[in-house]
Amino acid sequence: MEVSKRAYNFCAGPAALPEAVLLRAQSELLDWHGKGLSVMEMSHRSDEFVSIATKAEQDLRDLLSIPSNYKVLFLQGGASQQFAQIPLNLLPENGKADYIDTGIWSQKAIEEGSRFGHINVAASAKPYDYFAIPGQNEWNLSKDAAYVHYAPNETIGGLEFDWVPETGDVPLVADMSSDILSRPIDVSRFGMIYAGAQKNIGPSGIVVNIIREDLLGRARSICPTMLDYKVAADNGSMYNTPPTLAWYLSGLVFEWLKEQGGVEAIGKLNEVKKRTLYDFIDASGLYSNPINLSDRSWMNVPFRLADDRLDKPFLAGAEARGLLNLKGHRSVGGMRASIYNAVDINAVNALVAYMAEFEKEHG
Amino acid sequence: MEVSKRAYNFCAGPAALPEAVLLRAQSELLDWHGKGLSVMEMSHRSDEFVSIATKAEQDLRDLLSIPSNYKVLFLQGGASQQFAQIPLNLLPENGKADYIDTGIWSQKAIEEGSRFGHINVAASAKPYDYFAIPGQNEWNLSKDAAYVHYAPNETIGGLEFDWVPETGDVPLVADMSSDILSRPIDVSRFGMIYAGAQKNIGPSGIVVNIIREDLLGRARSICPTMLDYKVAADNGSMYNTPPTLAWYLSGLVFEWLKEQGGVEAIGKLNEVKKRTLYDFIDASGLYSNPINLSDRSWMNVPFRLADDRLDKPFLAGAEARGLLNLKGHRSVGGMRASIYNAVDINAVNALVAYMAEFEKEHG
Repeated sequence: MEVSKRAYNFCAGPAALPEAVLLRAQSELLDWHGKGLSVMEMSHRSDEFVSIATKAEQDLRDLLSIPSNYKVLFLQGGASQQFAQIPLNLLPENGKADYIDTGIWSQKAIEEGSRFGHINVAASAKPYDYFAIPGQNEWNLSKDAAYVHYAPNETIGGLEFDWVPETGDVPLVADMSSDILSRPIDVSRFGMIYAGAQKNIGPSGIVVNIIREDLLGRARSICPTMLDYKVAADNGSMYNTPPTLAWYLSGLVFEWLKEQGGVEAIGKLNEVKKRTLYDFIDASGLYSNPINLSDRSWMNVPFRLADDRLDKPFLAGAEARGLLNLKGHRSVGGMRASIYNAVDINAVNALVAYMAEFEKEHG
Repeated sequence: MEVSKRAYNFCAGPAALPEAVLLRAQSELLDWHGKGLSVMEMSHRSDEFVSIATKAEQDLRDLLSIPSNYKVLFLQGGASQQFAQIPLNLLPENGKADYIDTGIWSQKAIEEGSRFGHINVAASAKPYDYFAIPGQNEWNLSKDAAYVHYAPNETIGGLEFDWVPETGDVPLVADMSSDILSRPIDVSRFGMIYAGAQKNIGPSGIVVNIIREDLLGRARSICPTMLDYKVAADNGSMYNTPPTLAWYLSGLVFEWLKEQGGVEAIGKLNEVKKRTLYDFIDASGLYSNPINLSDRSWMNVPFRLADDRLDKPFLAGAEARGLLNLKGHRSVGGMRASIYNAVDINAVNALVAYMAEFEKEHG
């Protein structure tokens, strides 16, 4: 089978996957390990699939050094379903939770959370036009909060924490959909980490949830059984049939990540990538990024052209060169280059070369 | 790329998929239609993916002649999540719903439904040891039920309705996870049909929901936004990122089904398959199926060997011949051959040949 030329894909999600992972999935698609059937045709309770599922979890545990008092769950419904699932599991009736507003995704979490209890917005980036993250000295955390929720990386705004909030005994809950596995983190600082797969993990349709065991078993009576974290944990994420194909593909990505040297190594590569792109933008006369230097996202780099009328020709020229999905989110406009783990330095270099060329012509 | 010998896969789900679909997915896995990226790497809002999603829906509409006043939704969480989602959307607070108990799956729906309102079990196959479906003259339907729920095919017990209940103005809600698309149905008889994909549609991780428009917009205040059918309908099943890969693969199966001549043609093939297997079982001295003749499932054929001690050698011999996943569900024991659309007559013939051979040796 001939492999056609693959484009450089800067999509914010569902996002590029490592070519090695796709090639492996392709070769195994009709016949996994000589068993005569595809992974997606296996019972989730078969020895074969259980071995795939177990290895995926172990590889993720290795990659993030997940302590043994944390469960790893493979769920469905994306981060948006978690926005309800979190209060249904962790917010007692008439209880209160603190949320930090740093952009569109944390706002969505606040909006859905408010349907299930009292949400205190303990801090907001709004006074900074969402160009900077308020320091923790500006936060108004509640003493009696059931948890503190935040989004370490805002995919749309391109705003990312380079520090972990200090919440004492109050569990910290983080939507890491777009920055999980991009550089080392200390899982023990968190009560719960969750991430939709379709950015740094695998295809859409699966969510990874890393949750401290003492937070299980608190679900409200109105919580659907399928949304109860404890039910998922007690059943190894197989209370019903899990998304087996997505789980398998996520496992291939974890394996690939280990082969790259793990999260520390990929973090160093990501640092070079983001520095290459931001340095070029900052030095240019045509492109700009408005985010406070220390709050810039490593994964999602939004930028504007000095003249909006250049957006269309910029995108057309990019597409002609196989640089895809650079258009910014419809809510903010401009451009955005998402440079997740699977987007390598060659892609970034090709983008910068094109941006330079375009600036020379139109700048 | 060499295609290895594919096994005959009788798994109850996740189940066999058409080889033609897998070959197509394999060839497109790194580069869909020369676009330079995999379907799972595309934005769900891209023209490319929207065309894939739209075609899948239209093909399903064509296959089942879905009337225009029905919405087709592509959801997540499997049928088990629907067991909560149905009352959260269709059962008013303090309302009542009728459920029919014909086996393990309808019982699970009853159990979860009971957490959200008053469930009246209007009929049960229990007096018949779940070997026969009580006729509608034995049912005690409520006059004021918000809906009537049943499972037309019980995957574990192998019990299937060959008739559609008459519920007048009360919407009929059907869990068709294991028999959708197996033969023609009249969608207009139903308020809602739902089906986990992993039997007759595609990989696990996606649920198809066909719902009459007047049933939208009734969600309870405690219903998570992601579980609200109206929200899904208003957003073309893209309120958040849908499981794009599973949606695409489901679409390939719909396309394949149309190529086979549609549901009427596949229904005729399915009738031959099930008759071949049941006729052989009934004529044999070693194998038996206890289900009332007119209530036998076309899709899931459970059978027992006269002596349980033969189960192990039977399964070992089957596996050695590439006849996989014939072990019955752990809750009932014995054997089960699931013969969904993708399991063709050659597989059934190979199974029957082996069963005959085994009977000659051990009968």
